[in-house]
Amino acid sequence: MPSATSVLKRLVLGRPFRSDRLSNELLPKRIALPIFASDPLSSVTYATQEILLILALGGVAFLHLTPWVALAVVVLLVVVVLSYRQVVQAYPSGGGSYEVASRNLGRDAGLVVAGALLVDYVLTVAVSVAAGVDNIISAIPELNPHRVLINIVFIVLLTAMNLRGVRESGRTFAVPTYAFVAGVLIMIGLGLVQTLFGHHPVAESAHYGIHAEQTGLSGLAVVFLVLRAFSSGCTALTGAEAISNGVPAFRKPKGLNAARTMTAMGVLSITMFAGITLLALISQVKIAESTCDLVGYPGNCADESQRTVIAQIAAAVFGGDHSVGFYYLQATAALILILAANTAFNGFPLLGSILARDRFLPRQLHTRGDRLTFSNGIILLALVAGLLIYVFAGSTTRLIQLYIIGVFTSFTLCQAGMVRHWNRELRAAETPAARRRIHRARVINAFGACFTGVVLVVVLITKFTGGAYLVVIAIPVLFLLMRAIRRHYQRVRDELAPDEAGGLLPSRVHALVLVSTLHKPTQRALSFAKASRPDTLTAITINVDDAETRELQRVWEQHHLTIPLKVLESPYREITRPVLNYIKTMRRDSPRDIICVYIPEYVVGHWWENLLHNQSALRLKGRLLFESGVMVTSVPWQLHSSAARDLERASHLPGDTRRGIL
Amino acid sequence: MPSATSVLKRLVLGRPFRSDRLSNELLPKRIALPIFASDPLSSVTYATQEILLILALGGVAFLHLTPWVALAVVVLLVVVVLSYRQVVQAYPSGGGSYEVASRNLGRDAGLVVAGALLVDYVLTVAVSVAAGVDNIISAIPELNPHRVLINIVFIVLLTAMNLRGVRESGRTFAVPTYAFVAGVLIMIGLGLVQTLFGHHPVAESAHYGIHAEQTGLSGLAVVFLVLRAFSSGCTALTGAEAISNGVPAFRKPKGLNAARTMTAMGVLSITMFAGITLLALISQVKIAESTCDLVGYPGNCADESQRTVIAQIAAAVFGGDHSVGFYYLQATAALILILAANTAFNGFPLLGSILARDRFLPRQLHTRGDRLTFSNGIILLALVAGLLIYVFAGSTTRLIQLYIIGVFTSFTLCQAGMVRHWNRELRAAETPAARRRIHRARVINAFGACFTGVVLVVVLITKFTGGAYLVVIAIPVLFLLMRAIRRHYQRVRDELAPDEAGGLLPSRVHALVLVSTLHKPTQRALSFAKASRPDTLTAITINVDDAETRELQRVWEQHHLTIPLKVLESPYREITRPVLNYIKTMRRDSPRDIICVYIPEYVVGHWWENLLHNQSALRLKGRLLFESGVMVTSVPWQLHSSAARDLERASHLPGDTRRGIL
Repeated sequence: MPSATSVLKRLVLGRPFRSDRLSNELLPKRIALPIFASDPLSSVTYATQEILLILALGGVAFLHLTPWVALAVVVLLVVVVLSYRQVVQAYPSGGGSYEVASRNLGRDAGLVVAGALLVDYVLTVAVSVAAGVDNIISAIPELNPHRVLINIVFIVLLTAMNLRGVRESGRTFAVPTYAFVAGVLIMIGLGLVQTLFGHHPVAESAHYGIHAEQTGLSGLAVVFLVLRAFSSGCTALTGAEAISNGVPAFRKPKGLNAARTMTAMGVLSITMFAGITLLALISQVKIAESTCDLVGYPGNCADESQRTVIAQIAAAVFGGDHSVGFYYLQATAALILILAANTAFNGFPLLGSILARDRFLPRQLHTRGDRLTFSNGIILLALVAGLLIYVFAGSTTRLIQLYIIGVFTSFTLCQAGMVRHWNRELRAAETPAARRRIHRARVINAFGACFTGVVLVVVLITKFTGGAYLVVIAIPVLFLLMRAIRRHYQRVRDELAPDEAGGLLPSRVHALVLVSTLHKPTQRALSFAKASRPDTLTAITINVDDAETRELQRVWEQHHLTIPLKVLESPYREITRPVLNYIKTMRRDSPRDIICVYIPEYVVGHWWENLLHNQSALRLKGRLLFESGVMVTSVPWQLHSSAARDLERASHLPGDTRRGIL
Repeated sequence: MPSATSVLKRLVLGRPFRSDRLSNELLPKRIALPIFASDPLSSVTYATQEILLILALGGVAFLHLTPWVALAVVVLLVVVVLSYRQVVQAYPSGGGSYEVASRNLGRDAGLVVAGALLVDYVLTVAVSVAAGVDNIISAIPELNPHRVLINIVFIVLLTAMNLRGVRESGRTFAVPTYAFVAGVLIMIGLGLVQTLFGHHPVAESAHYGIHAEQTGLSGLAVVFLVLRAFSSGCTALTGAEAISNGVPAFRKPKGLNAARTMTAMGVLSITMFAGITLLALISQVKIAESTCDLVGYPGNCADESQRTVIAQIAAAVFGGDHSVGFYYLQATAALILILAANTAFNGFPLLGSILARDRFLPRQLHTRGDRLTFSNGIILLALVAGLLIYVFAGSTTRLIQLYIIGVFTSFTLCQAGMVRHWNRELRAAETPAARRRIHRARVINAFGACFTGVVLVVVLITKFTGGAYLVVIAIPVLFLLMRAIRRHYQRVRDELAPDEAGGLLPSRVHALVLVSTLHKPTQRALSFAKASRPDTLTAITINVDDAETRELQRVWEQHHLTIPLKVLESPYREITRPVLNYIKTMRRDSPRDIICVYIPEYVVGHWWENLLHNQSALRLKGRLLFESGVMVTSVPWQLHSSAARDLERASHLPGDTRRGIL
């Protein structure tokens, strides 16, 4: 009978894959785009909204600054896409920013990037899922009380899909991503045509005022507000890194295909972001941090949440919040947002496995699971992201405060590393054409490094008190942790390096058999110990209860056993110390000999049987491992009840899940 | 450095005792009385109250029935004390009712008694502690919101005291018990003198009416009400059993000393119970299930709790609720009630250890701890009682519904067993004097059996729906569980019985050494395996990653190792199955040989190091124990980091706590 958990595991995971199937799991561009780029594509659903939200803090008048903020974000997007096109072609092995920074700026810079990226992958999952649920609640407001639960359910579903393996999840994700892109482009086109014909769309919130939080702003405060708006708009940038980490999953030529996918992503992102921002201005969408800040809101502002910006635009363009177009756009927006979290589900385990390979993280993250995915990384990511969602009650606006600091840290260090890379290439280049090409590439990366560096400072300053300080703590902690792990592995490796003396043969072997009563397990241990022909063979028993010990001695004589039975006194009813003292004395007398302790063990079939057998010998066993020159041999005795379990196990071994045996 | 937990353990427990100190732990009568009899002595604090409470359900008029109900309880007390005086002298080994029922009525009757007593010991702790806290809250009403917490704190304190060992706890308990008895006797005397001089005490609730829950009761309903009141009053009976279980803790002559202690307990109990009931009637105490049932209550009846009956009497006799006498009596009443729980802390572990000795309960309950107490039983009792307190929110009135069913079950079966015992004795008796003595004893026990049997039926009927059904479920469950445990131990014992064939020597030993990489632990395992001179010696490795396996083969050749390295293929990246299949093949080829699998193990110093080393070999080890004809030898390699832990362990071994080494 296979266990219920293994059946469940098989249902979720599907049939396991053989190791040699690995190379089949590569992605064509049309599938790679939705997998790796769904994050930046989806972030158009909230990037505009976050800009409007921040500007509105200063009052409705500040909304006229929106186009300029949006333009800055677009410029940044162009710069990042151009920079990363170069990264994926120069470093196609999938290390991405981590590899670039490590190779060109040293190990520590690489680790900072790694820490930053790990943090941001987690936040990508949390923010994207939370925003997706926001859009679901925009369409079905009744779900509002179950916000956190819905978030968690989606994270579990994503985890399950990713544990199934990369290609199947790619197919699952391609359709909604393309459906969303098509929907947004149609909405933008329709909205602009309506405007051209003089019937410009009007959002449901167009006639509201906004209760400004900050009034009478001075010059510097205005600049700060605009910079905050810009920081929030930068969430549109978070996907580029995932493509550069995912290069090995592309079909050949990997670098070129990845670069082209990146360009496609950039063009689509910019078009959609610009279009949505334009329509938001045309339809005069108003959005505020709290519903109660809206002047003129008719309902109960304390309990009701505002619709997302994209939902309001869709309702305005497609003719109301019961039109087919509205539901289509909300459905695809929610879907792509939740699937965008998948970008991180691809990136995080891959980066984790690279770090584990380099011994900066535990080796378990480098092991491929049943479906050849890095299962442990996927599960770790899901747990941490789920915890964040729970702690922040699934609020997109609060989670977004922690976001993109990691991404811009890695952008900046990566671009700086690329500048060094080109400097080195320049020295090796021979033809003037090559030198010109490298010069041009270096300018792009240098500009990228400066621009993203400035953005990083802006983001840090504007978001610090809002929650970003958590990330400022987390990245150095991760950095130190990874260095400590690496140091530990290195120390162990040095310590265990094989040498010639390690093979030295011990001079004699002394066998001790632990005896509590004389029964079949003891008899087996005695005969197995005898079969290994040790130099000396002694049975030892610990005298905890005088009567029992006398009984044992009587039975021992009655069975005419030739092996001597040594009784160790134990006035405090303890097992470990008398045995240890005895062994230490033996070791002192002849330090070059080894001692082999034979422990008879029952093997029981049910967990509760362990409760009924007080096997203090097992505790002794754990302690004996700390003595050098001692081996511990378990001589198992299988109770009849274990046969049932043995059968079950025979038909269901630990590896069965990988073979698809149920 | 000793660990914080061991320091704490030493602080709580004191210095551990050597096994040979056991006989010193015996009790003189003046200490045994407070230890074993504090339960019946203390129950006078609530027995009267519970009678009044039930009668008041029918209205104030029914309170005139109180003396008759109290008289019935006194008669019952006399019968039980006389019966058990005979039990402790006939069966001085401490098995009490369990032993009497087992020997005379058969094993199953004994197990029913055992189950009933275990349940009632738990309830004794819960009820006594809850009633003690009631009295504390009577004196300091501000503590009412923390009722459950205070209960739990007292259970923890009791547990700690009992883990320290029996004599010290006896001394701790003697003073408050005698102080309480003295206080109650003085209060009764003073109250009666006041009454004689015409200034009879008047309770604070004397002028209240009671809103009757049941009005216009018919004849049968009146009988039922009186029987319910009687059932509740029977809580005064619960201590007798504890003395009969505690006989081995008495000084010699054990039986006689126990019998005398029992008489002293009976006389004191009856005097105090009768006196308090009398004063309650004189001072016209009124008490109701809910404060709001009191007619004329001036305060906010929903939030305030009523004072206990004994508190009201003390206030009336000693001159108000701020008099020294009032506080003295409340303090000693609270203390003795909480210490009464100690009766069960003495009885439960002792009965548990007897049942464990007879293999009806897990053997762990038979092991004596550091201070020669049955620590596991004490801890188990505390956990279950704490859970009950938590579930019933510390309400004495609700807990009392579950109480005394167990006690009366065991009373009845015990007395019935004693009748059989005397029948047998009678056949052996020779002199007419002896025959007369036995006849008289048999009459007492027969009467006791009938009387307690009737009471058991009454208690069952009147309390069933109030919560007693839980006990009616629990006792049979315990009964079946104990039978199952006994059956299991018996089956294992039969299975393991030594035989001549068990010592048969296997013909050959094949050694397999598990290798993943070649480092010092592997080298040590290889040389230890070689030192045991097996008939064949093979190193095996599992090919999970082609590159790593090739590297291992290269290093193997480079080190000129003469032991053959066998590579087992594993296309699904699993460890267990290839090894198991290999071993099964070997066993099939030569079933009389044994296989010894050597597993190199790192021993690490810190728990987190285990996270960093993916020792899949350990899982394999667990699985190999299910194969017959296989031994598993751990060859430990102590990493440097383990040395720190080794030192710590050397100075702090598992048994240190018993030696008083810190």
